[in-house]
Amino acid sequence: MSKKETIISADGIDADVLFTEFKEHSVADFFKKNRQMLGLYGKQRTLTTIIHELVTNSLDACEEAGILPEIEVQISEIDKEYYEVAVKDNGPGIPENKVGNALGKLLAGTKFHRLVQTRGQQGIGVSGIILFSQITTGKPTKVVTGTTKDKTIALEISIDSKTNSPKITNKQTLEKKHRGTIIKSKFKEIIYKKGQNSVDEYLRRTAISNPHASIKFQDPFGEVTEYPRTIKKLPQIPKEVKPHPRGVSVDEMLSFARHSQARKVSSFLSQSFDRFGNKAIENVGKFVHFDINKDPKKLTWEEAEDVVKAIKETKFIAPNTDNLVPIGQKHIEKSLRAIVEPEFVFVTTRKPSVYKGGYAFQVEVGVAYGGGSGRLVSVDKKADEDGPRETRVSEIIRYANKAPLLFDAGACGITKTVQSVDWKRYGISNFDNAPVSVFVNVVSVHIPYTSAGKTAIADEDEIVTDIKLTLMDVSRKLGTYIIQKKREAEKKEKRRVFSKYVPEIVAALSKSTGKNKELLEKNLMTMVLEKLKLDEEEDKKIEQSEDAKK
Amino acid sequence: MSKKETIISADGIDADVLFTEFKEHSVADFFKKNRQMLGLYGKQRTLTTIIHELVTNSLDACEEAGILPEIEVQISEIDKEYYEVAVKDNGPGIPENKVGNALGKLLAGTKFHRLVQTRGQQGIGVSGIILFSQITTGKPTKVVTGTTKDKTIALEISIDSKTNSPKITNKQTLEKKHRGTIIKSKFKEIIYKKGQNSVDEYLRRTAISNPHASIKFQDPFGEVTEYPRTIKKLPQIPKEVKPHPRGVSVDEMLSFARHSQARKVSSFLSQSFDRFGNKAIENVGKFVHFDINKDPKKLTWEEAEDVVKAIKETKFIAPNTDNLVPIGQKHIEKSLRAIVEPEFVFVTTRKPSVYKGGYAFQVEVGVAYGGGSGRLVSVDKKADEDGPRETRVSEIIRYANKAPLLFDAGACGITKTVQSVDWKRYGISNFDNAPVSVFVNVVSVHIPYTSAGKTAIADEDEIVTDIKLTLMDVSRKLGTYIIQKKREAEKKEKRRVFSKYVPEIVAALSKSTGKNKELLEKNLMTMVLEKLKLDEEEDKKIEQSEDAKK
Repeated sequence: MSKKETIISADGIDADVLFTEFKEHSVADFFKKNRQMLGLYGKQRTLTTIIHELVTNSLDACEEAGILPEIEVQISEIDKEYYEVAVKDNGPGIPENKVGNALGKLLAGTKFHRLVQTRGQQGIGVSGIILFSQITTGKPTKVVTGTTKDKTIALEISIDSKTNSPKITNKQTLEKKHRGTIIKSKFKEIIYKKGQNSVDEYLRRTAISNPHASIKFQDPFGEVTEYPRTIKKLPQIPKEVKPHPRGVSVDEMLSFARHSQARKVSSFLSQSFDRFGNKAIENVGKFVHFDINKDPKKLTWEEAEDVVKAIKETKFIAPNTDNLVPIGQKHIEKSLRAIVEPEFVFVTTRKPSVYKGGYAFQVEVGVAYGGGSGRLVSVDKKADEDGPRETRVSEIIRYANKAPLLFDAGACGITKTVQSVDWKRYGISNFDNAPVSVFVNVVSVHIPYTSAGKTAIADEDEIVTDIKLTLMDVSRKLGTYIIQKKREAEKKEKRRVFSKYVPEIVAALSKSTGKNKELLEKNLMTMVLEKLKLDEEEDKKIEQSEDAKK
Repeated sequence: MSKKETIISADGIDADVLFTEFKEHSVADFFKKNRQMLGLYGKQRTLTTIIHELVTNSLDACEEAGILPEIEVQISEIDKEYYEVAVKDNGPGIPENKVGNALGKLLAGTKFHRLVQTRGQQGIGVSGIILFSQITTGKPTKVVTGTTKDKTIALEISIDSKTNSPKITNKQTLEKKHRGTIIKSKFKEIIYKKGQNSVDEYLRRTAISNPHASIKFQDPFGEVTEYPRTIKKLPQIPKEVKPHPRGVSVDEMLSFARHSQARKVSSFLSQSFDRFGNKAIENVGKFVHFDINKDPKKLTWEEAEDVVKAIKETKFIAPNTDNLVPIGQKHIEKSLRAIVEPEFVFVTTRKPSVYKGGYAFQVEVGVAYGGGSGRLVSVDKKADEDGPRETRVSEIIRYANKAPLLFDAGACGITKTVQSVDWKRYGISNFDNAPVSVFVNVVSVHIPYTSAGKTAIADEDEIVTDIKLTLMDVSRKLGTYIIQKKREAEKKEKRRVFSKYVPEIVAALSKSTGKNKELLEKNLMTMVLEKLKLDEEEDKKIEQSEDAKK
């Protein structure tokens, strides 16, 4: 760069002057100013996000404690764009000495540091909601909580955002015992509406993916919707899991090594990771350039890197399925049949896999076609003889750890993957405008959300690949169905056309040959039906040769 | 809920047991585990995000100090998916005693707490990058920085994520003076590629929106791209601004009041807010139910709410334009003409406005059509007589505070707004497949990003409205152009058809009437031209009546 330009630029304000404004901020102040990052923007979206945080928190609490969830949600209108939200669960409750930090401090909780499949995983959700309540109404949130041991307590909580710490007021012990937690909070700048992104839709989808939960919702008009549980048995409780060796980064390896109680790297590996058996340790020992009996606390970056490289060259069993609890093929199929009422539905739950960081995950994919599949956009009431004609567009129903994802579809790895499928290969010429519902649930010990608002999943390679392969698998079945259906429709049409002209041809033939009409008609119909049967056999042959090619 | 169901559910694990795992976490650990929330996922995307954070930081530093930015970016390949990135600027530098916290601590900086239009605003960006470098390579980041006063220093920095604090090593004073900052950092799990989401595209777009900056880029192949500055004058430096009364929330009002030095609410209002003149204070004083001369520190929530209500009933001048620095109509038009090479381009910079929270913002919208507008998706080389035919689809070029937004288009308020426009009204029957480039820049003292990765803007009502109105304004001009163009094409076609048949008609007429061929041809041509002119006048009449309807 020439000197001339440098001269043109001013010498500038001194750095010391600029840096007089240097300050540190609390994470509570950060999210208070950036409430959009918690999904708290848009009047309807904000309310749905509030319900999402409270309900997932309740479901997690119940399941972790091994309790069949019973959740009640109530929204009451106080004034225009001003509501009170109450969520009650029958969970384990919060111990008295933990309630402040559990609800009134961001980035605190039992979930963040453990690898366990829960809906919440950040330690932000409910405290973010309490913060939003107080900045829109100036009021604290009311909490009632009781455990099996402690007395039931009632208190009011708010957050000092400058210090990210809880402020508890009006604490009292209740006579009446209640095991579980009730959170009651007021909010302004929100609105309750029905429709696509509503609380109703959120809870309906929650019920689909949580058939073991009983959910009761009272809307601001007093109308009550109940989703009774359809399975009276708690699903397997996801256990905390050690990271799977596959995908663990060097930094994490070192961090684990530093906190390990083991005296040798070899025992550290078997203790700290899932599926790290003796054979794997032996293999790693041969591969690395240092003594595997070394103290793990003294591992250098280069040595840890060596271990990670060795892991790539070693075979490991897939992650333990105990740690991941999908909804299950049977339940998804049942739910889709009951709620979507499609012509065709097919669901697959894939085996667990691991993505970068050693996080185990598993995907479930379902495709529903025809009937009530897709999203209804319009109904033409004076259509053709078959009655009113509905126009439906495709719909992608996304879940992460069984919690519905309603927003930011465009930025979500699930959406991107579904859209990247070449649907023409499966008989769908225009996916966007097809009557299809694609259902995807990703369960993981750590969902890679793109934002603290937990609305979209990052398109991590391994997750994308698994969704895509499962989708293709499911879609192949759909393709066969659609092609079969098209052929049947064609055959029906052929039969209709033949049947229509047979009497005319018979009349003409009878006239010119003088033969018996009835006999002619019988013979001709037999020929037609023979022909259609032949077609069918040829179809089958073609199908078989196509299958053979695969 | 029936008692039976309650009995079925297990009594559950005790809350005390569950809560033994309760922990607090640092914001650095949070983002380390959730790197996706910083936009650090996907190998190409991660590299582009790294460049984005470093370059915006440099541009902000230069501009804040009143220095014409000269920025050099260099990416070198070390190994497969392993690169070194260096960014050098001629900014004010960082004082020695601030460098640790400025680069090695998340949520610390000079931007977060002030209302000033800068590209960075969170105090996360560069420290997040340094954290990502160390967790993928185990190496600290090298920093060289010098201010006008201090000696130039070189050091290495990393972050202790457990405590969110900087670790500085190898600090030394350099003989050679350098005013500005150089950051040199290594990263694994990234990839350099050209194309739509590349570093190249990011820097090209940065150059478009920052014509006063000189940017030089050396890619891993050693190829150098220079974007020399096209304006040798620094744009106005955005000043720190007080919040505008319109849109300030009750919580913020109280928070400001508590920190105010003023003795009366009246003087607090005029001191703490932009545009709060005597007349406005008088009006508020009449509206509220308490004495406006009261101590602002004693303001209750209800009283602050009263003030906010009064503000809604009071007229205020729009926010001071000094605080917002758009790119400007002229510069955007020039850039679009030079880079897109469209047939038609029209740009409007709207007057500033305020969104929820009292944050001033301003939008700029440009539409380019035809020529090189839109994104080229394919070229059919053996098309028709006019040469190869290009297929182009529409493109939305998004900026926030002059920084390009390349990712998560689907989740961005800008995209949603552009897609919500009824483009048919403006002569574009299918927006997705039209050769259109829509340019939108939102500048604000606080951009409402949906994620810490700063890739998408929340669809806050006021911002959406302003973008939409400006778009409609610009598109009306485009519509007139497209309709005019269509009419001209039709007229040309008519003329061609008439001219083609005139000689034949003349020959036939001449034969049947015996009149002179040349005279007949001349008369007929005159008639044709008259007719076309008439059409034109009718067109104009229709246009005028359409305008009158608006």
